[in-house]
Amino acid sequence: MKINALIAQQATQPLAAGQVELRDLQPDDVKIAILYCGVCHSDLHMARNEWGVSRYPLVPGHEIVGRVEATGANVTNVKVGDVVGVGVMVDSCGHCHFCQQQEEQYCEAGFTPTYNGTDKYTGGTTFGGYAQHVIVDRNFVVSVPQNLALGAVAPLLCAGVTVWSPLRHYNVKPGDKVGIVGLGGLGHMAVKLASALGAEVTLFTTSPEKGEDARRLGARQVVVSRDAQQMAACQASLDIILDCVAAPHDLDPYLATLKTNGQLVLVGIPDQPHPSPNVTPMVFRRLSISGTSIGSIRETQEMLDFCGQHNITADVEMITGDEIETAFARMLKSDVKYRFVIDMQKTRW
Amino acid sequence: MKINALIAQQATQPLAAGQVELRDLQPDDVKIAILYCGVCHSDLHMARNEWGVSRYPLVPGHEIVGRVEATGANVTNVKVGDVVGVGVMVDSCGHCHFCQQQEEQYCEAGFTPTYNGTDKYTGGTTFGGYAQHVIVDRNFVVSVPQNLALGAVAPLLCAGVTVWSPLRHYNVKPGDKVGIVGLGGLGHMAVKLASALGAEVTLFTTSPEKGEDARRLGARQVVVSRDAQQMAACQASLDIILDCVAAPHDLDPYLATLKTNGQLVLVGIPDQPHPSPNVTPMVFRRLSISGTSIGSIRETQEMLDFCGQHNITADVEMITGDEIETAFARMLKSDVKYRFVIDMQKTRW
Ligand SMILES: [Zn+2]
Ligand SMILES: [Zn+2]
Ligand SMILES: [Zn+2]
Ligand SMILES: [Zn+2]
Repeated sequence: MKINALIAQQATQPLAAGQVELRDLQPDDVKIAILYCGVCHSDLHMARNEWGVSRYPLVPGHEIVGRVEATGANVTNVKVGDVVGVGVMVDSCGHCHFCQQQEEQYCEAGFTPTYNGTDKYTGGTTFGGYAQHVIVDRNFVVSVPQNLALGAVAPLLCAGVTVWSPLRHYNVKPGDKVGIVGLGGLGHMAVKLASALGAEVTLFTTSPEKGEDARRLGARQVVVSRDAQQMAACQASLDIILDCVAAPHDLDPYLATLKTNGQLVLVGIPDQPHPSPNVTPMVFRRLSISGTSIGSIRETQEMLDFCGQHNITADVEMITGDEIETAFARMLKSDVKYRFVIDMQKTRW
Repeated sequence: MKINALIAQQATQPLAAGQVELRDLQPDDVKIAILYCGVCHSDLHMARNEWGVSRYPLVPGHEIVGRVEATGANVTNVKVGDVVGVGVMVDSCGHCHFCQQQEEQYCEAGFTPTYNGTDKYTGGTTFGGYAQHVIVDRNFVVSVPQNLALGAVAPLLCAGVTVWSPLRHYNVKPGDKVGIVGLGGLGHMAVKLASALGAEVTLFTTSPEKGEDARRLGARQVVVSRDAQQMAACQASLDIILDCVAAPHDLDPYLATLKTNGQLVLVGIPDQPHPSPNVTPMVFRRLSISGTSIGSIRETQEMLDFCGQHNITADVEMITGDEIETAFARMLKSDVKYRFVIDMQKTRW
């Protein structure tokens, strides 16, 4: 079926409204009328082919909130009218070790990304959430709690679960000392979620003016990372750090703030390597540096339920589809608090 | 009391026999007549002041096996005549979080090293195992199983426990796929201990001629790390790697051999940083890089008991004290299989 979408026809062209073809509804499929879609940094990278893997036409968007419009014969987990979410994945092999243990994000065959992936039915490209509709396998659709503002829920589907997953994987508990590096789309969700989990959050930022906001979002302490004295004052004080800064930066000052057995978890992938970390404190204090990639469907649902209970959503700036290029440009300057979300119902097609 | 020892009087002088003064036996002390002392790379670094922290006169040696010659009034865990071991630590604060949970190697006040540390009774320097005697707090003395060849036990006290600790900390189990990088003093113990724990060991080496030896020591598979094809063949196959190479080297090829959730554990500290690791596979496969430092007294005893049960010792070359400088020179060329051990009883004073 043909649907309306914001389409990148080439890496060098701005996104523009147009039409793409989705697969017909299959017995396992859910057809969703999209209400909101968050604007993730990946969307910009992919629209511009900055990772060299983009296939055009390309429809970005993997922070989707919408309403079920139709369901295939086998679908029982959601019904027409339900408000649901779709994140970064729309399929996976289903039988590998990781799929079996519900960690599809690490599927050995590689999960199917929501856009720029390969549709297993048609062999064509998958199209994302900058669109009026999407068709997704029932196992990759999550339920959205009724009480949350839906536009502000959208960013939870990628930014939210990307920080939720390591918080849960490393078992962050009440009283734990958690550092968050960077107050952007990911970082602001990390501050909210970690503090709602009962952790004592320290926000590291290069921008002193973000301090007030960080505290409002739940940070107990704000440390200006360029201030050596402030950094020294929190030496060996943290259990775990989620480093949400993708730009290459020195990891050593953050390692210094970790207690023995502490974990530095990298959420972003820099386009150039970080300066090489110093092994000495890693050995003498058994520190580790690790990476983490989005989160599973199970974790996404768990996070949404948690957000429903704690009344947590993202801080967003709502835009319409024709404002996407302006939003991209502002995002490049980190000029957004803290995520743009496209209102699909206000978008003209 | 005065004892005979091999002493570095300055960084630029060879070790030579002489005398140093030990504290008098305290109520909590054990006096040990040293039978054997292993020759660790640290000994050479410290004798030459390569880490800039050496205090002279300096007596190296922290892989000590000896016989109890006297005990203080409070000592009940060992008795005169017992064969015992002393490793890298001879004291710690005893009351910090890590001491309380029997991980003295991470003592928040810093443990007291066996040599070049500060004697808490005299305020003077601690002297190590290149000597006829040593006096050590009872809590830092471990028991050596009767059935093992004592000379070959000495290297277990540093090299052995340094690889044992991460194998246990990361819970290596029968059937686990364990990689060991480098077949030196640490690496050869890692191969023995990991395979005795039931793991399937892959030894990475730059020297194809070490293959036969590695298999004899327990490796199931030997991979020449400079051979890209061999490295590609074991991609994403390992649960954990103990990297026993201290020289700076590229970590990325080893990250590539780890399964999702795999751990690269660095046992050595390079004098220059390793090339910066690539974050991409760390994120997409949730890999981690961590460090580890020696092991606790509890782990040391556990390892010795395990070695007693499995009849494991180090492969050693026995020397006398007057051969130490030759041994240092050969060690620098990695020309030793796999650890020099000084036979104190054959050493002339
Ligand atoms: Zn995203
Ligand atoms: Zn799978
Ligand atoms: Zn040593
Ligand atoms: Zn302590």
